[in-house]
Amino acid sequence: MPRFPEIAATASTTRGAVYSTVAARLAAHRGETYPLHIGDTWLEPAVGCRMEDLLSAEIEGLHRYAPVAGHPLLVEAICRTVEKRGGPPTGPENILVSAGATGALAAAAAALVDPDDEVLLLAPYWPLIAGIVHQARGRPVPVPVFAGEVDSVPALIAACDARASERTVALYLNTPNNPTGRLLPRPWIEALVAWARSRELWILADEVYEDYVYRGEHTHTRPLAPERTFAAHSFSKAYGMAGNRCGYLLGPADAIADARKIAAHTFYSTPTAAQIAAARVLAGPGEAWIADARRRYAEIGDEAAARLGTRAPAGSTFLFLDVAEHLGPAGLRGLLETCADRGLLIAPGPSFGPYPTHVRICFTSAPPEVVRRGVETLARLLGR
Amino acid sequence: MPRFPEIAATASTTRGAVYSTVAARLAAHRGETYPLHIGDTWLEPAVGCRMEDLLSAEIEGLHRYAPVAGHPLLVEAICRTVEKRGGPPTGPENILVSAGATGALAAAAAALVDPDDEVLLLAPYWPLIAGIVHQARGRPVPVPVFAGEVDSVPALIAACDARASERTVALYLNTPNNPTGRLLPRPWIEALVAWARSRELWILADEVYEDYVYRGEHTHTRPLAPERTFAAHSFSKAYGMAGNRCGYLLGPADAIADARKIAAHTFYSTPTAAQIAAARVLAGPGEAWIADARRRYAEIGDEAAARLGTRAPAGSTFLFLDVAEHLGPAGLRGLLETCADRGLLIAPGPSFGPYPTHVRICFTSAPPEVVRRGVETLARLLGR
Repeated sequence: MPRFPEIAATASTTRGAVYSTVAARLAAHRGETYPLHIGDTWLEPAVGCRMEDLLSAEIEGLHRYAPVAGHPLLVEAICRTVEKRGGPPTGPENILVSAGATGALAAAAAALVDPDDEVLLLAPYWPLIAGIVHQARGRPVPVPVFAGEVDSVPALIAACDARASERTVALYLNTPNNPTGRLLPRPWIEALVAWARSRELWILADEVYEDYVYRGEHTHTRPLAPERTFAAHSFSKAYGMAGNRCGYLLGPADAIADARKIAAHTFYSTPTAAQIAAARVLAGPGEAWIADARRRYAEIGDEAAARLGTRAPAGSTFLFLDVAEHLGPAGLRGLLETCADRGLLIAPGPSFGPYPTHVRICFTSAPPEVVRRGVETLARLLGR
Repeated sequence: MPRFPEIAATASTTRGAVYSTVAARLAAHRGETYPLHIGDTWLEPAVGCRMEDLLSAEIEGLHRYAPVAGHPLLVEAICRTVEKRGGPPTGPENILVSAGATGALAAAAAALVDPDDEVLLLAPYWPLIAGIVHQARGRPVPVPVFAGEVDSVPALIAACDARASERTVALYLNTPNNPTGRLLPRPWIEALVAWARSRELWILADEVYEDYVYRGEHTHTRPLAPERTFAAHSFSKAYGMAGNRCGYLLGPADAIADARKIAAHTFYSTPTAAQIAAARVLAGPGEAWIADARRRYAEIGDEAAARLGTRAPAGSTFLFLDVAEHLGPAGLRGLLETCADRGLLIAPGPSFGPYPTHVRICFTSAPPEVVRRGVETLARLLGR
């Protein structure tokens, strides 16, 4: 019982800001900075879909509440988008528009997790998912997969089997993967779906980088198991609208009804202006914007990977490097501090699962020329 | 354990959309509708603070993530605002900018409540607070106060004493009050603070209608107990920006640090455009906008109260009526349905606590001429 001045146990044991451990060192740095630690883009959203394009006189209720489930214009546009990419059948009852994919996954986790339930997280994973499960009073259980730990479907399923327990209620997967830039191949996803079905598990499919694939093909999970899959999507990543805080959750109607109740009691509704901007980008310039961004992201991603001597990304906007051989007595923190002293911010491996000697960089969080100089700084520090 | 297709117990027992029980009946209605069930305003935000006024070329990072704690411009503006209204001393470490006051109170509740902890809610209360406590796995405990149940400080404290238990961790109060339009007088708040202190409780002070007082004076709770008070404020209610989803939470630095972790894992950050708009309104046209809105709200509020034969509101944007004598065999739902058949939506009393024969109307959710006709419809149905 958190009597004043104590705080609830779940809150006080939640991880703090995962990216900011060395921000203080950066403050002392003079000169250019390279903020490669956060997943964002240097590109502005498409013309016609920016805040200045949203006119009060034209859009009724632009500054008023939207419905909890989502603005009807956007909900309709999402239905069409899902249909265009091949289904499954998706109506308004399958949709929750949310405060980014973070809001989507937080609502889904709160809907699925009772205290002490376990959620398997294919690792390395998007850093906030572990805290989201923790806040739902559940236990995140990493299953190391994407950093080369498994190389076949049987090994993948064996890894899941080894971590599953009687308390497991759901499996989380993130493809294209943040932080490794890898994709789950279709046969792997099919095997995971069959395995989840055999164990009566829910699936959380985080697909916010679905549009950023440079090699291979993205496989949507929900069409393979629409009865048990929550899929999280985002306008932040797809269309350069991270600050708008708009994403969406797709799932079975009954479960979405529960996720909507969670949403109503955490962020209430998604910003109306963000929803109008999202509906516009889906209806108009979105496809061309993505095609252009994808080309630019691939170019700088490949260049960064080559300079750092790592595999070119198949998707997403990240590279994940094992820097074990470059760590001194001060360990990973020492490296992060040395980077910060040179104006470079990178994300520490432990944020993504059991990766004490890895770091992640985002190659789209600043303009390519800035990323290039940041990558050069890192490459030299690593003697590459 | 919510094995597929089951949902977590907390989610499935959370109340659904509290305002929409009779929306289907409304769909069959032809003619004008009167949406007096939701708290919103017909006014557009101040010129210069609308979406169309936010220019990508002028505002760096307009569509990119803001820090979890809040955009530095807005955080600074909030510090100045708190100082202007007399304190207590408030720095950035005391502030979490949030997805509306809903996001603020959800983060505060999640920070304070462990499973089965109890939170006293002075009732009638803002409807979402009960579900927010429930989602934090706590138990909301109504303390009927505002609808005439207590008429003195000793009676108030006795009511609190009667509902407190060993599991009580916090006291929630909402003044100016939604739904009754009443204010907690300063001596009442002083007594509540002393009582909370004596029992080592946290205080959640929901003050989103602080600027809308027509009779009497609003008392801020946090200056009386800054060490234990979370105060929730909102640009939605103050400045006609409900769709922007921007509010803020004030509190002790350590507790705010925990609330920020909750926020990062539910909505991540507050929309950047909304924060810029909020910073601008605080720095410029906000005061004049509020003065004008307050005058207009008071006018239609007084008129609505007179027509319905109830006490004129002291603050907020609501009237709360006991309609017991007008309920037939179909009870409150029957009345709500009859209203919906005439195009009128009102909110049911049980959303606000143990008020099975009350209804709430908002007198600012539509232009005054529309509210006037809606109120006339209700008055005739009630034979007033």
